[in-house]
Amino acid sequence: MPILNKDMQVCMSLAARPSNIGTRFHNYLYDELGLNFIYKAFTTTDLEGAVRGIRALGIRGCSVSMPFKEAIIPLVDVMEPSAAAIQSVNTVVNDDGVLTASNTDYEAVAQLLAEHQVDPRQSVLVRGSGGMASAVVAACRDAGFDDLTIVARNPEAGPALAGRYGFAWVADDPAPGFDVLVNVTPLGMRGDAEDVLAFGPEHIERASTVFDVVAFPSETPLIAAGRAAGKRLITGAEVIALQAARQFERYTGVRLTADQVARASEFSRAE
Amino acid sequence: MPILNKDMQVCMSLAARPSNIGTRFHNYLYDELGLNFIYKAFTTTDLEGAVRGIRALGIRGCSVSMPFKEAIIPLVDVMEPSAAAIQSVNTVVNDDGVLTASNTDYEAVAQLLAEHQVDPRQSVLVRGSGGMASAVVAACRDAGFDDLTIVARNPEAGPALAGRYGFAWVADDPAPGFDVLVNVTPLGMRGDAEDVLAFGPEHIERASTVFDVVAFPSETPLIAAGRAAGKRLITGAEVIALQAARQFERYTGVRLTADQVARASEFSRAE
Repeated sequence: MPILNKDMQVCMSLAARPSNIGTRFHNYLYDELGLNFIYKAFTTTDLEGAVRGIRALGIRGCSVSMPFKEAIIPLVDVMEPSAAAIQSVNTVVNDDGVLTASNTDYEAVAQLLAEHQVDPRQSVLVRGSGGMASAVVAACRDAGFDDLTIVARNPEAGPALAGRYGFAWVADDPAPGFDVLVNVTPLGMRGDAEDVLAFGPEHIERASTVFDVVAFPSETPLIAAGRAAGKRLITGAEVIALQAARQFERYTGVRLTADQVARASEFSRAE
Repeated sequence: MPILNKDMQVCMSLAARPSNIGTRFHNYLYDELGLNFIYKAFTTTDLEGAVRGIRALGIRGCSVSMPFKEAIIPLVDVMEPSAAAIQSVNTVVNDDGVLTASNTDYEAVAQLLAEHQVDPRQSVLVRGSGGMASAVVAACRDAGFDDLTIVARNPEAGPALAGRYGFAWVADDPAPGFDVLVNVTPLGMRGDAEDVLAFGPEHIERASTVFDVVAFPSETPLIAAGRAAGKRLITGAEVIALQAARQFERYTGVRLTADQVARASEFSRAE
C-alpha cells in the first residue's frame, strides 16, 4: 500500500455485520492498479446520518448490505433499473452530490445467464424467497424466461415473490423435470448446512444447468453434483466476483479483467 | 502500510483546503506503531452533515481546521476547557457517540510556555489577532501572565481580542522593551512575506524569549534573528508537532515520544 494522502477517493460499505471481503477485494486492486483510492467497511445504527455523511464528505461510492438495501432507497437521488426492478440497492455512486443506486447482484445474475447462454425458453426452478432470490427471479424475467417456479417454505415471502414477477410458487418440491435449477438459500453454505444438497439427484439428472448462489464454499454439494453429472454450472463465486467487479467499475471507471477479478477474489477470501 | 481491513478505526480532518500534513503525520505513526487506524483529510460544504456522518459511521476522531473551528461548537456534546477558553475547536474525539471538543493549539502553547520556563511575570508583546492569536493570548492569561500587549492593525479584531482577555491593544508597534515577543501573523511564512522580520531588531535585542507560531519554514527570519542573538526560542514547528501529538494521544491513547513526533513531523513535511 502507498502512504495514504489527502487526495485519495474513499469508497466504503454499510452493513449490520461487515465482512472483510469488500475491503480486501477493492484495496487489493487499488494497490495493483495504482489507483488513489481507499475502501473501508463500516456499520451504522443511523442510516440517514451515514448517507448524509457520504454526501457531506464526498465519499465516492458505498456498497450496501443487509439490512440497509431497501431502507436506503428514499435516501438516494436516482434509482437505476437494476435496483428499481427488485427495490433493493447494493451499490451507491456519488457523482458530485448526486447519489445513484444500482444492484450489481441483479446485474451479475443477468450477465451470467447471458454469458452461459441459458436459453430463456427453458423451465427454471428457483429455491428461496429472500433478497437475492428477488435478484435472480427479476433477472430471469427480464431475460425473457416465462416458465419459472419458486419453491420456498416461507408461506408469505414465497407467494409474494412469485406474485410480484408473475410466476408460480410451491411450498414443497415439485416433480423433477426443470431445465435450470437455481439455489438461493443457505443450503450448502459453510456452517450448519454445508453437507446439504440443495436439489435432489433426480432434479439434477433431469436438468441441463445448475446454478448455486452460495459462494462459500464455491464448490457446494450442488455444484459438485452438477459437475459430476456434466451439467452447465454457474457458481456463487462467479456471482460475487462479477458483482464486485461491476461495483469496482462504477466507483473507479476501471473495467477489470477476468484475471484481476479472480486474483482479487482469491485474496479477499484468504484471511 | 498493512492491507486495510474492516476493523480499522478511522480518524479524519475537516478543512476548507486540506493539506497533506495530518494525513502523513498520523498514518506514518500508525504504521510505525502497528496501530489498526487510518487517517484521511476531507473537506465539506456541509459541516452539520459531516458531523452527522462522523457520529453515524463511528469515526474515532476529527481534526478541525479553518473555517470550521467555531461553527462546529454547537454540533459537539462536550467542550473541554481548552476549546471553551477560546471558543475554538481543533480536535473532536468520538467516544461511543459522545463528541468531546478540545483545542490542542491552546494546549501546545500552554505546554511550551511551561516547558521553556517562560516567567509569567515577564511582559509579552503578541503580534496578530486571528484564531491562533486567541490561543496564544488565552494560554498566556491562564498561565498567569498579566502584562501583555497585542499589536494588530485590524481595528476590530485587535481590540476585541484584547478586551476578551483583559489586555492592552495597540495598532502600531510600541517602543521596544518587551521580554517575550510572539508572532502570530503570516510574517515570515513561506510565500509572499517570507523575508519579513516580524519584529524589529531593537525589539529582539531587548527581549529574552522569541516565539514564532509560523511553522513553514521552521527557521523564519524572526527565529533566525533570535537564534543569532542568543535568545530563548519557541518555534512554530514545536507548536504544530506538539498539537499533533496531543491529537494523536486523544485519538489512539498512545503517548508519543519526542523522537517519534520529530520523525513523523519531518515525514509529514517532506512531500
